[in-house]
Amino acid sequence: MKLLGAIEAGGTKFVCAVGDDSLSVIERVSIPTTVPTETMPKVIEFFKKHDIASIGIGSFGPIDINKESDTYGFITSTPKTAWKNYDFVGTIKKVFDVPVAFTTDVNTSLYGEFKKGIAKDVNSAVYYTIGTGIGGGAMVGGKFVQGLSHPEMGHMSVKIHEDDHDFAGNCPFHATCLEGLASGPAIEKRAGISAKDIKEDSNDWNIVAYYIAQAALNTALMLSPEKIIFGGGVMHQTHLLQKVHAQFEALNNNYIALPPAEKYIVKPSLNDDQGIIGCLALAQNEIKE
Amino acid sequence: MKLLGAIEAGGTKFVCAVGDDSLSVIERVSIPTTVPTETMPKVIEFFKKHDIASIGIGSFGPIDINKESDTYGFITSTPKTAWKNYDFVGTIKKVFDVPVAFTTDVNTSLYGEFKKGIAKDVNSAVYYTIGTGIGGGAMVGGKFVQGLSHPEMGHMSVKIHEDDHDFAGNCPFHATCLEGLASGPAIEKRAGISAKDIKEDSNDWNIVAYYIAQAALNTALMLSPEKIIFGGGVMHQTHLLQKVHAQFEALNNNYIALPPAEKYIVKPSLNDDQGIIGCLALAQNEIKE
Repeated sequence: MKLLGAIEAGGTKFVCAVGDDSLSVIERVSIPTTVPTETMPKVIEFFKKHDIASIGIGSFGPIDINKESDTYGFITSTPKTAWKNYDFVGTIKKVFDVPVAFTTDVNTSLYGEFKKGIAKDVNSAVYYTIGTGIGGGAMVGGKFVQGLSHPEMGHMSVKIHEDDHDFAGNCPFHATCLEGLASGPAIEKRAGISAKDIKEDSNDWNIVAYYIAQAALNTALMLSPEKIIFGGGVMHQTHLLQKVHAQFEALNNNYIALPPAEKYIVKPSLNDDQGIIGCLALAQNEIKE
Repeated sequence: MKLLGAIEAGGTKFVCAVGDDSLSVIERVSIPTTVPTETMPKVIEFFKKHDIASIGIGSFGPIDINKESDTYGFITSTPKTAWKNYDFVGTIKKVFDVPVAFTTDVNTSLYGEFKKGIAKDVNSAVYYTIGTGIGGGAMVGGKFVQGLSHPEMGHMSVKIHEDDHDFAGNCPFHATCLEGLASGPAIEKRAGISAKDIKEDSNDWNIVAYYIAQAALNTALMLSPEKIIFGGGVMHQTHLLQKVHAQFEALNNNYIALPPAEKYIVKPSLNDDQGIIGCLALAQNEIKE
């Protein structure tokens, strides 16, 4: 039986897996993200052990997803120097003569939730990862939102919290964009301590919730999705989502009619397998098409 | 020959028109928006004079565009009391046994530009009207962005300009959302004088441009469209778009790769006929489908 291949290429590790047509993982391996000459041979070695029909890739970015472009399938202007302008799809295609799907890591997480998780009954959803950075992927009418390129929602402009005017932010491009205010490193820079040591009742979490709630509101206003999903390390703070719900309701102020915030703004449901499942599903689509 | 019908239903006037398959207007009429019992009979009277094959409607809102809904085709929670919960499509359908397309006024303006105007060579675009209020419509992959409902981009959360912290905003729901800061009434409230009397070199225009530039940036980050179009009365200030371009470039700070701002952020190109042309095009689609 031919298997589906999946590569979830993150900034710290590559998770590679093979799975079956029910999108169940049969075998997986985790490979540290160092430099392409070290990481990629291990990726290739893993898939050579299996008879694969197609591969779905969800990659850290920015990436080139425009099929008409000369650099389609490349990781482009990433701050990870060794991966800058790296021909990801080309490298895979050189070894494996199979169809390859290529999109952002947030899009594959979204797609996993869409196929098997919390967004399985909807047609439109947006997925944010809030961790070292902030990324977002969107689906409308069952298709990824994609125009000139993929979305970069993490860098949206938001209103500064009244108690946060002294914080300089930490985005090298925009200082106080969403990522510069609410990513893991931004939270730690503001607090001066590790995020796990910030007390649950610290005003810092109200500040962070305010920014995430604005991201959710701007998403609801611009895309009107049926679900907004927040994943990533920062959301592992179990009290945070509830604070986001409260601030979201306050910000929206009943302007747009929405389901209750706790049904509308949710966490991923697939125990961090959403990315790999999304990759398998994209690999499956490549064969169906 | 059967004709296409178009209704551009705005807050101050309804423009009704009939056109041919090349989307050219053959006859049009402008009817004041008073109350439904006064306005709608005149609309109906106009179309009765013609042999129409279908009608496309672009309406002020919020409106219900969900075809599964019991109130599909209604104007819903508008502040214009007489039009609240008004069955717009039903009223038309009762008289004319033809297919009717129904969407927001900004979507029809966008669609006009998409069919015949400045967005004619692209697949994705966003259109804002900045006037008494601020509305936005989006198209991705040639289709309107629509999930739970239509977008309401005018109410997005934005960062306050450093010289604008004393202004309370004027959105009754969100105070200092985009509309509360950059709509015509907000501009006049801030200045204390009529917008046409605000000098071109007044800092007020830098402040307004800052907010519109943030709307453009958040749009580029969330939807990655190929064009962003700003229409509406406020944009008739001819110097304003240039100020928006400069602030947009500064805000993006070369983070996302985009065409030059003056090619990317543009005005509508159809001399205020974009809405009617969009309605005609939607009417045409109803027959083709």
